[in-house]
Amino acid sequence: MRVFLKIAYDGTNYHGWQFQEGQSSIQGEIESALERISAERVSVTGASRTDAGVHALSNIAVFDTNSSIPPERYIFALNDALPDDVRVMESKQVSDDFNIRKAVTNKTYEYKIYNGIVHSPIDRLYSYHYRGELNVSDMDKAAKFLVGTHDFTSFSSVHAQVKSFTRTIFFCDVKKEGDYVVIRVNGDGFLYNMVRIIAGTLLEVGNQKRSPEDIKKIIDAKDRTKAGQTLPPCGLLLKEMNYEGA
Amino acid sequence: MRVFLKIAYDGTNYHGWQFQEGQSSIQGEIESALERISAERVSVTGASRTDAGVHALSNIAVFDTNSSIPPERYIFALNDALPDDVRVMESKQVSDDFNIRKAVTNKTYEYKIYNGIVHSPIDRLYSYHYRGELNVSDMDKAAKFLVGTHDFTSFSSVHAQVKSFTRTIFFCDVKKEGDYVVIRVNGDGFLYNMVRIIAGTLLEVGNQKRSPEDIKKIIDAKDRTKAGQTLPPCGLLLKEMNYEGA
Repeated sequence: MRVFLKIAYDGTNYHGWQFQEGQSSIQGEIESALERISAERVSVTGASRTDAGVHALSNIAVFDTNSSIPPERYIFALNDALPDDVRVMESKQVSDDFNIRKAVTNKTYEYKIYNGIVHSPIDRLYSYHYRGELNVSDMDKAAKFLVGTHDFTSFSSVHAQVKSFTRTIFFCDVKKEGDYVVIRVNGDGFLYNMVRIIAGTLLEVGNQKRSPEDIKKIIDAKDRTKAGQTLPPCGLLLKEMNYEGA
Repeated sequence: MRVFLKIAYDGTNYHGWQFQEGQSSIQGEIESALERISAERVSVTGASRTDAGVHALSNIAVFDTNSSIPPERYIFALNDALPDDVRVMESKQVSDDFNIRKAVTNKTYEYKIYNGIVHSPIDRLYSYHYRGELNVSDMDKAAKFLVGTHDFTSFSSVHAQVKSFTRTIFFCDVKKEGDYVVIRVNGDGFLYNMVRIIAGTLLEVGNQKRSPEDIKKIIDAKDRTKAGQTLPPCGLLLKEMNYEGA
């Protein structure tokens, strides 16, 4: 039986989604919790291999099992066995040919910049602190140049090994919300570090180091060195995942 | 010279504002940071002695010093010396007769209830999880009975030692905000555990254990056992402090 999970986590204390020997990972926590509750060693495949320190409200994953635990019970059984910072939000059976990566139609990431003088202590693990002045309207204007189907080589970490750097961004908005500047980006898929590089580049538009129109040139260059810095993972949240077949 | 501080903190890892031998406290952290930067042992007086685990965005405090550090510099000097979860948001000189407790005109507390099925892992330390159904409109109706000048003995922990149990609540609102039910209460002062007992009592209105009109009877009884449970500290935030003379 193939079981589908929707998973939320505080990424602060993890080396990312993917299991790595000797490191704490979300995948590792879920696999060892499953082993404790079903005495079965299974492999869990996630739709999004978020990086160390990145948070998620809506990652999804599947695993195959011979256990007799009813699929709807995993939400309770796993949450009893998992640490507080990893939660299963939903569990159900899917068809045996359900392919988690192909099922995703689009996902939304949010990057939160805290733009007050002193970083809010109660949001310090869930936002990036930048105290300089930011022109949010220019950032939003720049964001619009990212929308569409492009080769995003310039916005991908150099050691990324993928077949194609082409992705489609459906929307990218930058908004001021109180002391925060929030970047929301929705697309069919994202390259390694892509959202954090987008956030770093938009930040450099906000502080007038670049103009909104520069984004077009950066995309055309297909050269990582032309884009801005990769902002830290704590500000990044995988907020929404849309999928079909589950 | 008397120096005024505005302070924000994540209360998770502290036994409250007040210094207690052998326990971590906000006051203790600030006093020892001051000692490290000015080589002077001073006593810091806060306007609100928040309880263990309670968060604050806007507590205020004063201390008297003979140090030559310019008062506006404490914001930087202290933040360099303090742990990440305690932040000084503002520092300035006030007159030598400024009385921190008398200066407060009113303050706003927020109690956040996460009302989804599974507690959000990224807000687990800043909200209380309650998964049962809540009638928010009844809770808000009940909240209105708290507004005004009343003897709040029923909403004070039994071991509280104060001269008077009379306080004035200027507003008390309960709102549904996405998966959250948020209680905001503003008043001229609060008794020990008062907001957490108010939140626990309003919760019992929300889950139909009590009617909104019961609040009036509870106030009139002047008996702590008539009110609801004290909800956990993690959901409580001292959000705003209004004061004069600084």
